[in-house]
Formats: sequence, structure tokens, C-alpha cells
Amino acid sequence: MTDDSEQAAGSAPGAPAPGGVGIVRPRDFVHPHAFQFKSGQQLPGFVLRYETYGALNTTRDNAVLIFHALSGDHHCAGWHSPEDRKPGWWDNLIGPGKAVDTGRFFVICANVLGGCQGSTGPSSVDPATGRPYGVTFPFVTILDMVRAQKLLLDHLGVAELHAVIGGSMGGMTAMLFAIEFPGFVRRVVAMATTARESAQAIAFNEIGRQAIMQDPAWNNGVYPADGGPRVGLAIARMMAHITYLSDASMDRKFGRKKKETAAGDGYTFDVQFEVESYLRHQGASFINRFDANSYLYITRALDQFDLAQAYGSLEKAYAPVQAETLILGFTSDWLFPPEQNRAIALALLRGGKRASYAELATDLGHDSFLLESEQLYGLVRGFLERERHEFDFAI
Amino acid sequence: MTDDSEQAAGSAPGAPAPGGVGIVRPRDFVHPHAFQFKSGQQLPGFVLRYETYGALNTTRDNAVLIFHALSGDHHCAGWHSPEDRKPGWWDNLIGPGKAVDTGRFFVICANVLGGCQGSTGPSSVDPATGRPYGVTFPFVTILDMVRAQKLLLDHLGVAELHAVIGGSMGGMTAMLFAIEFPGFVRRVVAMATTARESAQAIAFNEIGRQAIMQDPAWNNGVYPADGGPRVGLAIARMMAHITYLSDASMDRKFGRKKKETAAGDGYTFDVQFEVESYLRHQGASFINRFDANSYLYITRALDQFDLAQAYGSLEKAYAPVQAETLILGFTSDWLFPPEQNRAIALALLRGGKRASYAELATDLGHDSFLLESEQLYGLVRGFLERERHEFDFAI
Repeated sequence: MTDDSEQAAGSAPGAPAPGGVGIVRPRDFVHPHAFQFKSGQQLPGFVLRYETYGALNTTRDNAVLIFHALSGDHHCAGWHSPEDRKPGWWDNLIGPGKAVDTGRFFVICANVLGGCQGSTGPSSVDPATGRPYGVTFPFVTILDMVRAQKLLLDHLGVAELHAVIGGSMGGMTAMLFAIEFPGFVRRVVAMATTARESAQAIAFNEIGRQAIMQDPAWNNGVYPADGGPRVGLAIARMMAHITYLSDASMDRKFGRKKKETAAGDGYTFDVQFEVESYLRHQGASFINRFDANSYLYITRALDQFDLAQAYGSLEKAYAPVQAETLILGFTSDWLFPPEQNRAIALALLRGGKRASYAELATDLGHDSFLLESEQLYGLVRGFLERERHEFDFAI
Repeated sequence: MTDDSEQAAGSAPGAPAPGGVGIVRPRDFVHPHAFQFKSGQQLPGFVLRYETYGALNTTRDNAVLIFHALSGDHHCAGWHSPEDRKPGWWDNLIGPGKAVDTGRFFVICANVLGGCQGSTGPSSVDPATGRPYGVTFPFVTILDMVRAQKLLLDHLGVAELHAVIGGSMGGMTAMLFAIEFPGFVRRVVAMATTARESAQAIAFNEIGRQAIMQDPAWNNGVYPADGGPRVGLAIARMMAHITYLSDASMDRKFGRKKKETAAGDGYTFDVQFEVESYLRHQGASFINRFDANSYLYITRALDQFDLAQAYGSLEKAYAPVQAETLILGFTSDWLFPPEQNRAIALALLRGGKRASYAELATDLGHDSFLLESEQLYGLVRGFLERERHEFDFAI
């Protein structure tokens, strides 16, 4: 996900937009008990950093859980201070009167377990050693992320989720949440996602990890908080960033435009084209906000994600689902292309579930799910606000 | 181009195939005079390593010039020794009775200027210093490559080319050859190519260069022949390799298959999936045959390639062309997609040239041009062997 991209910023930078959720403050949920990972490894406890917008109703069933993508975080709407350059990453979708209406819904978003934006992850200090876990951190899976966030919901007193919503990795977590806690989730919106990480997606992840792990500063995962494999992480990010865009959107945004400062007639290995400058900026800003070991862990969690393999078949995976599901694919997304999204809805329908699939024609690539699009807003709003069918099949 | 890929090997490895050109020997063309680059820089002279198959006829007009892709070389058919693991990279296309019939044609293929397989490039020794040129080598362009190869043809006594043929970067050189030396070329076959490097393609090139130049062993381009930025070059190659394949072909070839040696249940950052192992092999074998500085120079030459910008418009660029042209696009090629190939043929047709475009439905991605395909062979053979129209418009 391109937190730094223009489309992620739904409002004019520099001031909280009127009509948004305003100034928000992250909080920490401390789970003080041992947590067992799918791998069998354990943590003595963990912290999840999260934000909420709106208020939980008295029946405690108006909560909407938002799941973020690989490089995202808990700050999905509002502003941390009036000086912020831009709001939370899904501020265009979430707020009073917006598609996810914080006047109706109690919206929750947490940084995933294994992350590096305040939740416990490889950069957290291992109480047993007083040093960051690094690569001694347990291998985290999408399932572990889901289970940790269920503990947060219990802590917040949520009785039932009105919906879970996520794009990209967030779509994987959203669907898996509905599988693991079927009685707890009434609706799922999953977009620009997949039921199974493809060979090509694994390949891009692997090269990103290689760039990090081959950087001498990675040092087997042991590095200071302000150091580490910054070169390798920047390269991983630049490459991943291409997969979030599309050929067409890059051509429209940059084409072959040259930097005004470009030396000579292009006879240089320094920045010459605007697209090069943009990518270098993406790499440079990423290394200041993301931990390289977290990048290794979360990409490995993505690689591992294969619902059909985990449950025997996609139909078996979705068998417990009680939620109604809306799956959204984007025509120009080549990381998790439309057919991978459609496959989710088709498997749900084959299993007799209430599922819809909509395909939005965009040319922004994978990041289209962050798009300012009335069509997208309308689909999400309509799905969240319609009356829910009572299920007419046995659960 | 994936020299190491299975489809590049047209014959069973381990023995010269019957019907091929047999054992071949590269030769060196030494141009002993100063050579002026488009950049204004000069070399006191240069060497091109090349191979030929078949014989030049008495009218010296049956030569076919083959241009290679980014990572290719002059060895496009036959075997260097009976012990070779595989033949030249286009052995399936070129040979006696094959689509490019060495019984009829005198086939020539040279390593490009700026390359590292025997032709003068950044790894060559600068006679002025006794050390490799490194980044003091002149910036090379596709035009420089074309002009250098024309000198080779003059040296070989070729009066007129029956055809120039190339894929990917080789398609750029082939078209530019027909623009620069219009009276010298009767036919062009250009495939899986473009008239203009796109923003996305520049972006992938840039990240590859960053991986190389940020490797401390790059050392501003000064490194021993058996050293250098091997880590960075391997990462560049692994990433580029993904762009030569397709999502579908990677899923068919590797899917989510695990290595038999994969540790545990995937809870490792070591190789776990076959696609990871394959990419690491691609990276590791590339660093033993390719020079990192050459990679910088040739990718920059690709970035610079934009015929419309260089000549004012695509129609103006193609205005001098006298050759008949066959352009081939491949449906699954997302590096130089079908529409970029089609655009070449359309601009030629708008300019009143004899041009054809054919699109082959494949799922192998960019590397489809190396495919064993009777359909591809038939198109190339038919185009090379048909009677040539006399031009009925003024030249």
C-alpha cells in the first residue's frame, strides 16, 4: 500500500478536513497473558496499538473493524495533530457521513501483531533479554494477526462486529476473521485481495527479503532502532511500490518526464526521470517509518497465506462463514488481479453463502482500493447500511 | 531475457542437436579507429565479438543480422563444445532448414557495444590507464550499438542485409538499424519490443541499478573482474527475471510448490518455495556471466530509447525506413505489452510503409519470443522467404 501516494490522502494536506473524525489519539491494548502462535512459538504477552472513531452503542454491535495492508497501520482516519501533512490512510472512506459512517459505527483499526507502528513485533524489546526480538520473534501468520485482534475486540466490549473491512493483506485478515469467528461477524468487505498468494507475489516478496537480508547492516536481524538495512529496505519498498501501481497510471503520472535538475542529456546514473525520483522518495521515506525485520515477517505471513491449502479446499475454508460478503476487484490490479478476487466470491457462492462481487474499472493498479471513488463509496455504504438477511440455512 | 530458462534451450542439453549449426567459434572484429558516441564521448577503437553461421553468397546480400536482448550475447545458435549444457539462445529458430535457414542465409550475431561477453564495454581495459573503464566508459545508446554493428557488416563485406531480427532490446536495435541505414536493410522482424521505454520499465531498471550501486562492493564502479557488486547484481537480475515471465507461467511452473528441503512448516526466511529457489539460481548464475557496470550502461540505454522524442514523432522516426517490417507481440508480455508492439506497426502503416503486425497468444510473458512455437517459426520463415515487393513510392 502506498501510504505516501497522493490517492491515499483524501483531503488537502496541512489541516484536518471539515467533516472528518478530527484529531485522534492512538491507544495501546496490553494483553498480559501468554499468546500462542500458529507456529507453536509463544510470547509472554503483547501490545496492539489501535485507534477508534465513533462510539460503541448500548447493544455493542455497531463496531466496524478495519484491517490494514502490509505497510499500513492503525491510523486509518483523522489527524494526530493540526500540523500533520495528511490524515489517516483511509480518511476518504471513514468519517461522519462517509461510506463508513462514524456517526453510526464504532470504527476500530489496530496495527497488526508483528508490525512496527506500536504493536508488538520484531523491533519490540524481548523482556527476557532486554534487546529487540529481531529474528527470534515468533513467525507470525495472518491467523495470528486475526486472533490477536479478537482479543482487542473482547477487551473493548464488542459483542458482535457489524463488519470487517480490509484491502490487500487487510482483505486476507478480514476473510480469515469471518472464518475463525463466524458468529461474531455480520458483514465482510474484502477488496484487492486473494485467497492464495501467487508465485509471482511470492517472488516479489522474496526479492524484497533478499535485498534486506543481503544488506550487511541487517546483521542477522540485530541492528539499532535508528540503523539497520536501510539500503535493502528502500530497495524492497521501491520494487514493491511498482507492484502497487499500474503501467498506465505510471505512464500518466510520470511518463518519460525528466527531472528539471537532470544532468546533461541523460548521460548519468543519477536521477534523470521523474519516476526515478519518485521511487527514491518512496524508498527513503519508508525506511524512516518501517522496521526491516517486520517487513520480513509480514511478507512471509503473506507468502504462507493459502486458504485452500490450510483448510483442504476453498469451499471447506469458507464453510463456517456466516457473514454476508462483498468482494471488490479492480481491473488494473496486477498484484491481486480481478480473477483472484472473483474466485473468493465464487467459492462462497458455491458454498451457499451470501456473497457479491463487484469489479471496478480503474487504472491505478493495486492501490485502487485507496481511490477517491464515489462508485467505491456507494458500494461500501450500501452494503454496510442495508438490512441484513436472516440466514435461511442451518448454521 | 532468460538465458537460463528452459524455453531458451531449444534442444536436449548435453549434445549438439542433429540439424543444428553444430560447433561454432566466436570471432573478434577489431575496429582500430576512433569511435564517436552519440553522447559526444569517444573510444580510440573497439572490439565486437560475433558469430556467423552459413555462408555469404556471391552477391553478398543474403546476410541476416540477429540482435540480442539486454542480457544476451553473440552466441545465438550452435554449440561451443560438445560438453556445453545447452546451445545458443535462439538455436530453436536458427539453423539449417529452420525458420532462419542457415542453408540460405548468412547469419551474423554480435555482442553489443557496451556489453561484457567479449565486446568492448565498461569491463574492458582502458589503454590510457591499464585498468577497466568502469564508469568512465562512454554512455552508450541503442544508436551507438547499431552504428558499431554496421562497421562489423562493412568489415564482413555485406552489401545489403536480407533481414535484421531481434526481440526485446534486439527489436529496438533492429528497428533503429532500419531507420539509420535504410538502403541497407530489406526486412525487419522485431518482436516483444517497444518504440519507447515506459515509466514502469524505467522504474524496474532504476531499482536494478540502485541495487547494484548501493552494494558497497560496487565501489563507484571500480572492482576486480572476479568481484564487484555480486549481491546487488543478483537482486537486479532476480527482479528483472520476474518481468520476463508472467503470473500464469509462474503459477504453472512453480505455483506454491515447496522445496523438499524446506525447513519446518514454512517458518523460515530461507528458501521455502520452489519459485524462491529458482530466482536465487537465476541471480547466482547471472553474476558469473555478467558485468555489473555493463548492466548499468545497457539499462540506461534502454531508458533513453524513445524514437518519437528523438525524431520529433514516431512517423518522422520511421520516415526513412525502406524495409518491409514484421512486428510480433505476445499477449502475456507485460514488459513490452502487445499494444506497444502494435503501435510500431501502426505508425509504419500510417507512414505508407509495408508493415505487418501479428499477435501470438502465449502465457509465457516477455520471454515468449524465445518460445518453441511452430506459429512463430512459420511467421518468421514466411516473411524471410517471400518475394520482396518493389516499392512503388518514392524513396
